[in-house]
Amino acid sequence: MKQDQLKQAVGIKSVDFIQDHMTVGLGTGSTVYYMVEELGKRVQAGDLTVNCVSTSQRTWDQAKKLGINMLPLDQVDHIDLTIDGADEIDTQFQGVKGGGAALTYEKIVALNSQRNLWIVDQSKQVQQLGAFGIPLEVIPFGHQQLLQRLEAENLHPQWRMDDQGQPVLTDMHNYIFDLHLDQLQHPHLLADWLDHQTGIIEHGLFLDIVNTVIVGTANGPQIIENIR
Amino acid sequence: MKQDQLKQAVGIKSVDFIQDHMTVGLGTGSTVYYMVEELGKRVQAGDLTVNCVSTSQRTWDQAKKLGINMLPLDQVDHIDLTIDGADEIDTQFQGVKGGGAALTYEKIVALNSQRNLWIVDQSKQVQQLGAFGIPLEVIPFGHQQLLQRLEAENLHPQWRMDDQGQPVLTDMHNYIFDLHLDQLQHPHLLADWLDHQTGIIEHGLFLDIVNTVIVGTANGPQIIENIR
Repeated sequence: MKQDQLKQAVGIKSVDFIQDHMTVGLGTGSTVYYMVEELGKRVQAGDLTVNCVSTSQRTWDQAKKLGINMLPLDQVDHIDLTIDGADEIDTQFQGVKGGGAALTYEKIVALNSQRNLWIVDQSKQVQQLGAFGIPLEVIPFGHQQLLQRLEAENLHPQWRMDDQGQPVLTDMHNYIFDLHLDQLQHPHLLADWLDHQTGIIEHGLFLDIVNTVIVGTANGPQIIENIR
Repeated sequence: MKQDQLKQAVGIKSVDFIQDHMTVGLGTGSTVYYMVEELGKRVQAGDLTVNCVSTSQRTWDQAKKLGINMLPLDQVDHIDLTIDGADEIDTQFQGVKGGGAALTYEKIVALNSQRNLWIVDQSKQVQQLGAFGIPLEVIPFGHQQLLQRLEAENLHPQWRMDDQGQPVLTDMHNYIFDLHLDQLQHPHLLADWLDHQTGIIEHGLFLDIVNTVIVGTANGPQIIENIR
């Protein structure tokens, strides 16, 4: 199967986890796209009635067009389940997200969700986190000083630019730095250090968050439960 | 002496700490106002040549009008000295800032300064931090969930509103929550917990930052060195 077919199969499978009358968090990305399309079909068919919140404008627009009932995050009192992608996931169910620059909103939704389900293809499964890079959302004010501080810590930050050579901006108009670490031995230690740095809004280490992973394989979607 | 005269005396005194050719961080507030006025006089008289960075638009505008050479933070490679106010300072030289909602920019400038000088009147000196409230700059996305989380932790958050009952917005268009704790026994523990909360951009606990304090008293400005 091609990559896109694997993503589609995983996206469709993940909708089985959505139950009637749930409040559902919708992530962002190419695999999530297929999940939202399938959810739209089941809503239109009358098989599911759900309220949803979104981690990005892109997903919000897609879901709205499909007739899915969307609510602002601050108007829901809980989220039953969030389905999102991931850029890396290791054997301990620790993850990296932020390739799409939506890491802060994604983390806020994830931390407010009772359960988190990630949908990925096999290429996202790694022994150790790090090769993808660790995205940081950073405040423009003082970003040069922050860049120097991260360099001094040997964290190899790179300021993310778009195709036109302009800084990538998040939905909150902040910058993205990617830390290029190759192999990250102690993700919790790095997360703790990053949490304490003024000027970093959020980092892409999603630790102790995911409950269930669906991996797209040539043999079909495989469901892996994180039993902690 | 009246409060304003005390503030003026402290503001003027603090300029003695600025040496020729320094890069200086200029804080924000009513006491800082007098410092910037005095600095402007000395620059105009040719007694001092300095480059300055600012923690707010208000101070930037004031300094520009006085002919002080202002630079964006990201265009200086270091800051020799920052002079700022504080809302509370305890006997251990730990402080609270953010009454003016500029806490994040103030902390970024402070942490990038080789020395920090705070100028306060006696009313800001406290045995224990807490009575003023601990300001937090928070992301609007998910602020209701964050408010509930802080309430559940018995941190008594209050969403700061302006005179018209509208949310106070920071320079980055975020909200301010004030934690009303009365007495704060362990500021480092609270700071650590707050650092780890997603959705909080920065908090107003300025710990282990200040080097020198000038306090306005009826007997004139008193200089107190934090010898660690």
